[in-house]
Amino acid sequence: MKKRFQVVGIGNAMVDVLSHVEDGFLAENAVEKGIMQLINTERSVELYGKMGVTKEISGGSAANTIAGIAALGGRTAYVGKVRDDQLGAIFAHDLRAQGAVYETPFAAPDGADETGRCMVLVTPDGERSLNTYLGVSEHLGPADIDREMMANTEWIYLEGYRFDGPESHEAFALAIDACKGAGGKVSLTLSDPFCVDRHRGAFRTMIRDHVDLLFCNVHEMQAMFPADDLKASMAEAAAEVEIVACTASENGAYILYDGETEHAHAVPTRIIDATGAGDLFASGFLYGLTSGFDMLSAGRMGCVAAGEVISHIGARPEVDLMGLFKEHGLV
Amino acid sequence: MKKRFQVVGIGNAMVDVLSHVEDGFLAENAVEKGIMQLINTERSVELYGKMGVTKEISGGSAANTIAGIAALGGRTAYVGKVRDDQLGAIFAHDLRAQGAVYETPFAAPDGADETGRCMVLVTPDGERSLNTYLGVSEHLGPADIDREMMANTEWIYLEGYRFDGPESHEAFALAIDACKGAGGKVSLTLSDPFCVDRHRGAFRTMIRDHVDLLFCNVHEMQAMFPADDLKASMAEAAAEVEIVACTASENGAYILYDGETEHAHAVPTRIIDATGAGDLFASGFLYGLTSGFDMLSAGRMGCVAAGEVISHIGARPEVDLMGLFKEHGLV
Repeated sequence: MKKRFQVVGIGNAMVDVLSHVEDGFLAENAVEKGIMQLINTERSVELYGKMGVTKEISGGSAANTIAGIAALGGRTAYVGKVRDDQLGAIFAHDLRAQGAVYETPFAAPDGADETGRCMVLVTPDGERSLNTYLGVSEHLGPADIDREMMANTEWIYLEGYRFDGPESHEAFALAIDACKGAGGKVSLTLSDPFCVDRHRGAFRTMIRDHVDLLFCNVHEMQAMFPADDLKASMAEAAAEVEIVACTASENGAYILYDGETEHAHAVPTRIIDATGAGDLFASGFLYGLTSGFDMLSAGRMGCVAAGEVISHIGARPEVDLMGLFKEHGLV
Repeated sequence: MKKRFQVVGIGNAMVDVLSHVEDGFLAENAVEKGIMQLINTERSVELYGKMGVTKEISGGSAANTIAGIAALGGRTAYVGKVRDDQLGAIFAHDLRAQGAVYETPFAAPDGADETGRCMVLVTPDGERSLNTYLGVSEHLGPADIDREMMANTEWIYLEGYRFDGPESHEAFALAIDACKGAGGKVSLTLSDPFCVDRHRGAFRTMIRDHVDLLFCNVHEMQAMFPADDLKASMAEAAAEVEIVACTASENGAYILYDGETEHAHAVPTRIIDATGAGDLFASGFLYGLTSGFDMLSAGRMGCVAAGEVISHIGARPEVDLMGLFKEHGLV
């Protein structure tokens, strides 16, 4: 029997606050380029005060992935916590408007924390440097996991960033148990090389015990599986999970499974804003995988979706992705 | 002695909620194309629920104008009301980040209204249809007018849309009195043809008694000064005020003063989103006028600034406007 969902994603629910900056701004404000750094309320206020004019666009890594799957017509849902405030309303609206199911209860209205946001500083080279105020997204816990939903999905997609919250480990465990108990599978994204450094042990255990499909980029791969070269790191990863999907920027992505390696080429694009590249790769790949396409086609779908999202500001697709798949002869 | 400000703008403080829609969406949802329509909370919730994925970008007609002047390095301030909520914080941040002074007190926190927002539906032809929930912007009143600020500006810029609030008429009167009493001048934008219909009498009185510079587009011009043709309407307007600046879309703008008519040509641009075209024309024109440029140059500055803002989503400039002025040989 067909399950209700192809993919259910769990992660940090965020609204992105995007601004163009020069490289000097990063240096002056001690922002590390190209990675995600967690910031507290004070730092968030300080940094926002120095940022120029911004745009607000729904974000959140796994939420971007789920939005992409929904945009492709996939059956998909998202779990992540916002508060009943204006940014929370925007986040919920945008996911649902895209066709995803989103039913996570609002965070309690009595706390000091607001809906999480990520200050995205985009430099002229298109690279993005992320400054994340987690807000209530931090409070995602086991009570937010609907076992029935998890039993009713072919895949769950876990966001590595969410390992930054203690209660969320329990939430992940619950989701994995319900999903696998009903024959579903588990995918994980390593999210960020520094996220790997923070959670190496927890990632290692989860990969070994539960993960069927591992998403990462080459930096995360080498942080997680240190070896002489990328090929050796990928081989180590492939020994642990059924499928490895490793993105490599302008070199596209490598898919390892059953002792094979497929190379999906990147779509040539002028990079305006790299935000969401990995997230949308996962959208395309998971959509392809759960729609009966072969590994290389799924990888190419990932590359096409990633190519779309880096061609404009913001981490949600703006162009009909299925139309792009058609143009590329993928469907 | 040089005044502190070149221009102080007064209007509806808004955050724009922008979404791409097909023309059919407008018809199905009874949205009138190309104009601004006021909506109440229920309609706002209904329409937002039907809209697809959105972007949130600070807006508000006069606020866009002031942001443009600030972006050019002009000395400028804005008066308009938001609440101390997340959208209010975004609005205030973006104006100040651009370099404008913005000190209007927050609306009282006990009311039901939130910071105003404008749902902007952008059709494939680039036209925008505005659906405005005024929220607390409606409550702008005489207490929000700082007489010293108004005495310290060369020009005030009044947004026609703000005639929709009864208390604001009093606020405008106070601002005009303080400004003119100190030798300043008054500009007004008619904002929208239906806004002209709603406030014809009040506009007529204000134009006759106080306005030195009138901004409008050809539709607003013909609504305000009905005559056999555009030329006759413009002549009527020119008889009432010192300067008329009438925009005409792809035909650029006409500047009437001292019995002369100057024609500033439009900058050829692919229209992505027409939101803010008139607002940014006013930025360029007011900047030019208050920086000692002649009428035609000021008009051309208006056309260049308008051309920039319609080439992307959102009504705030994204490219260095002074750089564009240089490219066009204006500075």
